[in-house]
Amino acid sequence: MAKGGIAADRLKSFIERIERLEEEKAALAADIREVYAEAKGTGFDTKIMRQIIRIRRMDKADRQEQEELLALYKRALDLE
Amino acid sequence: MAKGGIAADRLKSFIERIERLEEEKAALAADIREVYAEAKGTGFDTKIMRQIIRIRRMDKADRQEQEELLALYKRALDLE
Amino acid sequence: MAKGGIAADRLKSFIERIERLEEEKAALAADIREVYAEAKGTGFDTKIMRQIIRIRRMDKADRQEQEELLALYKRALDLE
Amino acid sequence: MAKGGIAADRLKSFIERIERLEEEKAALAADIREVYAEAKGTGFDTKIMRQIIRIRRMDKADRQEQEELLALYKRALDLE
Repeated sequence: MAKGGIAADRLKSFIERIERLEEEKAALAADIREVYAEAKGTGFDTKIMRQIIRIRRMDKADRQEQEELLALYKRALDLE
Repeated sequence: MAKGGIAADRLKSFIERIERLEEEKAALAADIREVYAEAKGTGFDTKIMRQIIRIRRMDKADRQEQEELLALYKRALDLE
Repeated sequence: MAKGGIAADRLKSFIERIERLEEEKAALAADIREVYAEAKGTGFDTKIMRQIIRIRRMDKADRQEQEELLALYKRALDLE
Repeated sequence: MAKGGIAADRLKSFIERIERLEEEKAALAADIREVYAEAKGTGFDTKIMRQIIRIRRMDKADRQEQEELLALYKRALDLE
């Protein structure tokens, strides 16, 4: 069914599919915030937890190389 | 089981729960990108679709008020 | 002067140049926030002002095309 | 000079002030990208440089505390 020259039904179905997926994604984001809040309540530092998650996501060799380079730059700039 | 004074098991379980949720969220983000790509392939403008989704998310009265104010500002700055 | 194999002085100079530029940029961001706060105090809606600035940045033909397409999609989805 | 009930001149002057400041800010952002590109061309790792700049911005005591906590969490999760 075209309206003003565009397939209104098709557009609507794409929009509604995206809205459902966005809703599920927002619910997961809320769940993640809840777990962080629970961890914080238990005494863990959520900022450090986020760093740990970023580190665990990295390839081990890349991580080692970056940590060595960071230590090298820190020494060069007297940040050790 | 404490390691260096922190409850390592508890920390690990929080981290793993977050990682699982982040994975699900990333999968949904990929699904959303796919629907947009499909819509684009059908000829729809994804930039306008995103505006439509933002508009549909707004409360109708707020939306009307904002659209009127935008039109007012546009006229004031000769942008009509 | 190399430290651990890297040109510490060169690294330091790059870092300090970037830090000075970042500082200037942060000061400008603060000035922008101040102008918005002043406008808000005068009764203007800063959210609409940001939309106006986005619109003024756009090429006129692009803008017209996008506004027509948005109106078309809105009609197709009974959002008019 | 009011147009449609709003002080069009005042609005215009706020908008133009913000646009000028945004332009200056964009120029600084371009300068920063240039320095990073220059550093990269000299062989430095810009990702590590950004980390160094974040570290230098931190209060020393906070930094030490965060680094110790990160090392503690890493050991607890066998990431050392």
